[in-house]
Formats: sequence, C-alpha cells, structure tokens
Amino acid sequence: MSEIQLNWQPDKTASTPIYQQITTYFQHAIASGEWPMGAKLPAQRKLAAQFGVNRSTLITALDDLIAVGLITSNPGSGMTVSGNHWSSLLAEHVNWSQYVKAGQFKPNTSAIQKINQFETDAVIRLSTGEPAPEQFPRELFQKALAKLGNTLTSLNYTEPAGILALREQLARHLAKVGIHTQPENILITSGSLQALQLVSVSLFPKDATIYTEAPTYVKSLQVFQSANTHLSGVPMDNQGMAYWQMTPPAKDSQAIMYTIPTFNNPTGIVMSADRRQQLLTYAQEHQIPVLEDAAYQDVWFEQQPPQPLKALDTAGNVIYFGSISKSLAPGLRLGWTVASKPVIDRLTDVRMQTDYGASSLSQLVLAEILADPDYDNYQAHFRAVLTKKAAAAQAILQKYWGNGIATWQAPTGGFYLWIRLADRINIPKLFDLATAQNVLFNPGNIYDFKPNQYIRLSFSYESTARFERGIQILTDLIQQNFPVGGAKHASERTTDSSVF
Amino acid sequence: MSEIQLNWQPDKTASTPIYQQITTYFQHAIASGEWPMGAKLPAQRKLAAQFGVNRSTLITALDDLIAVGLITSNPGSGMTVSGNHWSSLLAEHVNWSQYVKAGQFKPNTSAIQKINQFETDAVIRLSTGEPAPEQFPRELFQKALAKLGNTLTSLNYTEPAGILALREQLARHLAKVGIHTQPENILITSGSLQALQLVSVSLFPKDATIYTEAPTYVKSLQVFQSANTHLSGVPMDNQGMAYWQMTPPAKDSQAIMYTIPTFNNPTGIVMSADRRQQLLTYAQEHQIPVLEDAAYQDVWFEQQPPQPLKALDTAGNVIYFGSISKSLAPGLRLGWTVASKPVIDRLTDVRMQTDYGASSLSQLVLAEILADPDYDNYQAHFRAVLTKKAAAAQAILQKYWGNGIATWQAPTGGFYLWIRLADRINIPKLFDLATAQNVLFNPGNIYDFKPNQYIRLSFSYESTARFERGIQILTDLIQQNFPVGGAKHASERTTDSSVF
Repeated sequence: MSEIQLNWQPDKTASTPIYQQITTYFQHAIASGEWPMGAKLPAQRKLAAQFGVNRSTLITALDDLIAVGLITSNPGSGMTVSGNHWSSLLAEHVNWSQYVKAGQFKPNTSAIQKINQFETDAVIRLSTGEPAPEQFPRELFQKALAKLGNTLTSLNYTEPAGILALREQLARHLAKVGIHTQPENILITSGSLQALQLVSVSLFPKDATIYTEAPTYVKSLQVFQSANTHLSGVPMDNQGMAYWQMTPPAKDSQAIMYTIPTFNNPTGIVMSADRRQQLLTYAQEHQIPVLEDAAYQDVWFEQQPPQPLKALDTAGNVIYFGSISKSLAPGLRLGWTVASKPVIDRLTDVRMQTDYGASSLSQLVLAEILADPDYDNYQAHFRAVLTKKAAAAQAILQKYWGNGIATWQAPTGGFYLWIRLADRINIPKLFDLATAQNVLFNPGNIYDFKPNQYIRLSFSYESTARFERGIQILTDLIQQNFPVGGAKHASERTTDSSVF
Repeated sequence: MSEIQLNWQPDKTASTPIYQQITTYFQHAIASGEWPMGAKLPAQRKLAAQFGVNRSTLITALDDLIAVGLITSNPGSGMTVSGNHWSSLLAEHVNWSQYVKAGQFKPNTSAIQKINQFETDAVIRLSTGEPAPEQFPRELFQKALAKLGNTLTSLNYTEPAGILALREQLARHLAKVGIHTQPENILITSGSLQALQLVSVSLFPKDATIYTEAPTYVKSLQVFQSANTHLSGVPMDNQGMAYWQMTPPAKDSQAIMYTIPTFNNPTGIVMSADRRQQLLTYAQEHQIPVLEDAAYQDVWFEQQPPQPLKALDTAGNVIYFGSISKSLAPGLRLGWTVASKPVIDRLTDVRMQTDYGASSLSQLVLAEILADPDYDNYQAHFRAVLTKKAAAAQAILQKYWGNGIATWQAPTGGFYLWIRLADRINIPKLFDLATAQNVLFNPGNIYDFKPNQYIRLSFSYESTARFERGIQILTDLIQQNFPVGGAKHASERTTDSSVF
C-alpha cells in the first residue's frame, strides 16, 4: 500500500495545543476513510518536518493515537493505520471494499497494475508504449498554442462527432494512405482505446466471439473481456494473421475480427499486401466485421507499410481506428474511428452518453498541427530518429544477449522488440527481480492466450544510453539467477507462442 | 435522415469523361456503405455547383445511377440513395444495422438525439447547459496557453489519477467549500459524466437500486440504466430530496443514493443545511453510499449555498463529483471525483482500461488557470453576469407568460428555469413546433420517471435579446396552437412532478 502524503500543517497561532491539532487531524483523516486500514505513515522525522513541529510534540500526538488504537507502530517498518474499530464508534461506515469488488468491469491484472503504478516513477521504462519526450515537437506545439491564444473565443462542447476542422484535416491525411473518406464518416475519440471500448458496448452482440491475433494489444483483450465476449486467438505467421486457422465460433455466436495488421503489438509483424486482400475476401465471404487497429500506421522505419485494410475495403466491412498517441503526443488523448455512417452515428450517440466528447482544446491544437506545413517534416524526422534508436537497441541486445540469452526478429516499424528468452529464464521471477531494481519490461504472457517465453522491450521511450543500462541490469540478473545449465522453465511449463 | 455532404470534385484534366468520374464516385460511396440506404442527396443545382460541372453533365451521370437502381428520384422531394441491391452484387456486406442494435449500451431517446443534433446548428438554444461564449475568460486562457507554449517539453500519458499539479490545485480549491482532502483522494475525469459512468461499471453491485431525486440530471439516468440498475425516483420538497419517501429496495438489491443537492438539475432546488445533515445521518444508519453531484456548486447568484455533503461526511460515505464545465469551459472536458483511497484506486484502474486518462493539455491549462490569482475575480464576475441574466430572463417570462401560460420559482443559482406550463399546452407537440422554428428547449419528461407538464429553459447560453426572441416565438406557437379554453392535455394524461 502506498505511503500517505500530507500537506497540512498545524496552526501555531491557535489556542488548541499543537499535539491536539495533530491528533484531531489524524482522527478525521482515518475516520473519514481517506487513510484506509494498512496505509503506511511517513517516518517520524519526515512527519515532524512536514508539520513544522518538534519531534517531541509529534511523539506526544502519535502516542495518543497509538493508545486509542488508531495507528500501530511496527518495529523496524514504521507506523500504519490500524483500522477503523475506533472510528466506527464515531460513525457508520459504508464497506467500500464490498463495492470495489462489485462492478461489472474487471480489474487490471496485478502485473499491469504494477506497471501502471511504476511507469510514473523514476525507473528505466523498457515497458512503455510512448514516444521519447526528446522527440516532442516543441515548435509545432508552440506555434499552435500561440495561434490558439490569439483566436480562442470559447471552449464549449463540440459537435458530437468531434470538431469539423479536425475531421477535415484527418480526411485529408487519411487520403495519403489510400483511405478516401468524408468528415461525416469520422468520429473523434479519446485515443483508440476509447474507440475499442465504444465499439464493444455499442456494436457487439451478446456473447459475440472476437478473433484477435495471438499475441495482441493487451488493453484490447481487457476491453473485450469486460464486454462479456468470447475471445479466440488466431496464430500469426510472418505475413500476419493466419485467418484460415480461426476456430468456428460457438453456436449462435456472432464472429468479429480484430487485427493490428501494421506493426502488430507486441510482435511487430506487418501483414503483407496479399494477406490483407485475402483476409478481407475471407471476412466478406463470411460476413465478419473487421476492426482494424492502425495505431502504429505512421511509425515505419525505411519503407512505408502496405495500405490499410480500410483502403481496400470496397464493401464497407472495416471499422478503422487511428491514433495520434504513437506519432505525436499520447497526452492529447485523441484518436479517430472511420466507418460507415450508421456505425458512426451509433458510436457517437453512445459516446455522448459516456463522456460527452473529447477535449476541445486537444482537438483544436491537433487541427492546427495537422494543417501546419511543417508537420510532414516533423514526421519524417521522428521516423528517422526512431529508426536509429531501433538499430542501436538491437546492437545492444546483440552484444549482451546474442550469445544464448535471447533471439528476436528485426522490426521494420513500431516501438517494440518481441524477444524470446532462453528456456532457463523464469520470466515472472525476472520481472519481479527487475522491478526491484527499477527496470520495467512487459512479460509476454499478458498479450497472449497462454503462457509463453517472450518479453516485450520498448526502445522508443528511453535514450539509447538508458536502454543499455537497463539491459545491463537485466543481464546481471539473468546471469546471477538463471545460469547456463540451470533448470529449464519454459519447456516444462509453457507452450511457445506460434510466432518466430 | 441527414443530407449527404460532399467535398469531392472530378479531375477535369483526366482522360475519363467527367460524367463517368461522377458515377464511379457515387458507386464507391454507396457500395462501401458510407452513404446508407435512404440518405438524401443535395439538390441538382447544389450538386452541380459543388462538383464544378454543368447541370447537363451532372444529369447524364444521375440518369445512369438511376438506371442501375443506385439512386431514386422522388418527385417533389429530391433524390435518395435507394439501397444496396446493386452494390451487393459487387461485394458481400456486413449488415451493420444488425450490429448497431446489438450492443449493451442503450441509445439516447429520440428527443435527446434531436437536441444533440440541433445543438450544433444556428438555432436559439434555450436547451443547453453551457455558459455563454461571451463569458469565456479569454485573458485567463491566453496567459495559460502562452505560459504553456514556453514551458511544455512533452505531452505523454499522465499519472493514472491525473496530473499531480492539478490535483493539488483542486485540493486547495475544495478546502474553500469545506472539503479537506489530499491529492491521492482525487481522480481527474473527462467531465463528471465520465465519473458517473466509471462509478457505475466499477462499484455498482449487480441489480443495485439507485435512488435519485425526481426529476434529476437526464444523463445520469441513462448511465445508470445502461449499467442495468433499478432506478427509483425520490420526491423533493423545497428543502431538497425527501429521503424518508424512499421506497425499500427490492430483495437482495443494494441501495445507492445519487443526489444533486446544490441547484438540482433541472429544478434548481437547493438542499438546506439541515436536510443535508439529516440525509447523511439516514444514509449512514442504513449504510447507503451517497453519490454527490456538485456540477453547479460554484454557480450561485447572491448567496453561497450550504457546504457540500462531502464537507459534512465524517464517515467517508460520500463520493463527490465536481466539474469545470459549468463555471469555466465545458470543452476542457474535466471533472474530479473525491473519495476514499480504495474507491479512487478502483476507479483509476478501470479508467486506465477505458480511455487511459484525460487530455494532459486540458489538465495543464486548468492547473495554470486555477493557480492564477485572477481566477477568483473571474468567478465573481461570471456569477454577477449570470445573476443579471437570470433576472432578465424572469422579467421576460413574466411579461409573456406571467398571465396564465406558465408558473415557476426564482432560482438562486445554476443555469435553468424549471417551468410549469398551463394544462392546455401539449408539450411534445410544442417541442416539435418549436424545433421547426429553430427554437430548442428541453421537455421536462426526459428528466423524470413519469410524464409531467414542465419544460427546462436555460438562460445561461443565449444573450438576453435572443432569449426574448425565443420566448416570443414560443408564445406565438402557444397562442396559435393551444388557445385559452382549448382542450386540456396535462390533467388527463399526466401526473405532475411533485415539486412546485
């Protein structure tokens, strides 16, 4: 449980003794449930400094609190909030823990919760799907913000589907990858994750079967699971999803396909142009709607990937999800969905009931940036830097892991290396050891339908120097804990992912 | 069905005849499902102008399209897309209309869909819950955007619960209304609507009974309904929710209370200080969690309302929802939830699975504005202007409706007048007539559990002159269609809301 943070100080001019002000403050915070049972208090030294009081005054207050049973002193590990048996005399409490478990939405797995928590701390983040802060185009944003500062006359609710000027810019940009569409076929969302969430609650029939690549984007799996669908993983080869290996859906279950054809997350696989056409034909013959996640569309290294499925979709079977999170700024929280008008109308209607639209400010800034003639130059530069970082990351891996620790394929775009570790390495244990040393990576099993021997390393966020430092730490951990000739872990307990 | 919008033009330098380019363009748009069956085409004159072609060239193309059955010419009412029997020869189609009806989330009612649609057009909007564009504090935003332009070095994902600097500012502002809390007890959301949505899917036990004021915020009802809860309306008197009139929940159904104690939407009723204390005591005795929606907290006219329930909540039973939409800028899409740590943790975890956080840009701008010493002056000015507009709106109503058309109570804050129309006035019919004349108001039945004879008029958005113009149009419609001595509508068919 995380440590309590305080920003209160006693009033030294008041007539109430300071130690009493402190006990009252603690009583209120614990009785109100703001400090839950088990929460850890800061060290006495830190507390005294925060409150601006003598250590002795603080101890007087803490002794009182310990005496009434509100806090517990644990030798060697500080003080914790010891429960509400005292506060329950004060007032009836709602048992929140019962509610916290009650809602229909499933919690994140503990590994993902841990990653979400740690991602904000000062650790080496080989886990995150974010561009490096150094790649942030400050000038593009400065220009856009300055222009907006001069022209902004209000910030009210936007058109339900998103600001028209932004949808017009997106239609123009989509035409460059072969998608010819109109603003009325575009819905602006808060990132493409929200688009998946909207599609799940708006369009999925009860008990639908969702076919996804195995492995695939971990958050898509969570969203689909919370929508009470059946998930069915489809293997990939080096051309992309092996759609002919789809198992038939359960009786009376409607089939829906979800694919990341371009730089699949986590594997980096690009579906070939032929496979795209074949997959579309198959989906049309079987009347299967296709959800195309194109989050990494613009993040290619040396060669532009084949056209999106949506560009080839003469039958209107494809719903396309784009995002600015990987190629510009995840903090804008903007994505777009392209689909036929009845689908856009339905999604827009549900969207208006859940959060009433995306930030107008984010939308206006993005519309300015997409209209800026320098945007294309920025994108080319962004790709060039990313290409170099990918090459450098692979050189580092080759140096430390090339000889018997791991194997991988060279990606042609995206942010990730999908790495198979040697069978002797226990990945859950390595994850815990690495976290304790402030190095974060993503275990491969969170992306897949079964255990595997992979990890996902991101080279996009950290500098090459910090990437190398992270790999050094992992290498040391592997050599100390999983020496060559030690017990095998993978071969006994896991089945490999079918790729590579 | 809305009219199709086009921004394509034929390529006059191409070798393909222009009329053929037009037919191909139409075929593609219809075959792909982008133009659905029944969609209306613009008039021929408008089409020719848009395409930049002679009327005769256009007619050649349209005749071809009519001949193959892709479009239909309807004498007197233009052309419509006539279906996909032709396009279905081209490719297999997903039957999207089947999916559009399939998802678990309920659609908006047709009246609300109509309002959402019209709100973006050039009509007199007596319906909208938005501040007037004229009240937008341009200088505060200019300063914040300029500062951000100089200091912004990246826009990545934020801390899961929202940017710490913003949560610190909010804790400081909440203290002013008596809520003493810490940043770790605050979650930033995309408006308070998203907070309701998150609470519904994260905390509500299956088949929970939600008690709300009757009438109440329409979007809350939709969110709760889509979470498969039982909704139970509780009457109000002029002190607020008459909690003792709550009917017992169904067997095995957990009770949860949702209230807008300050300037209830739509009635404007303020719960008295005594009632707040009594309601909290009742909820504590019965272990009922209380959801407090404080969206209009800061929008008072001459006297600050009583402290929020959360300020009196020594037992931690209250989840508090705040928002910047009513007092600053709805387009920022920002709100905040204050609750005990386990609740905030659970909501944050689900939030990370649905849209991965609110716009960082919006959050940074709001943190700047809340820290600006001019913010309090802006708020005081905002309230003074709103107070005047409320008085002017009531003077206008007194002039046109005071004598036998309507009755209402003077609000002491908020954006709305909750108006009881005379029994002879058929409100659904008046709504349709008014919409046809570009005047939009909200019928009272969308807020309530049963039909009523009320409408909600907003005085916040339109200027006083346009408000008067709207009332003039409504008055004319009432006098023409529902003359004094005409048939009564309300007394036969509806039961009145219990208030006023």
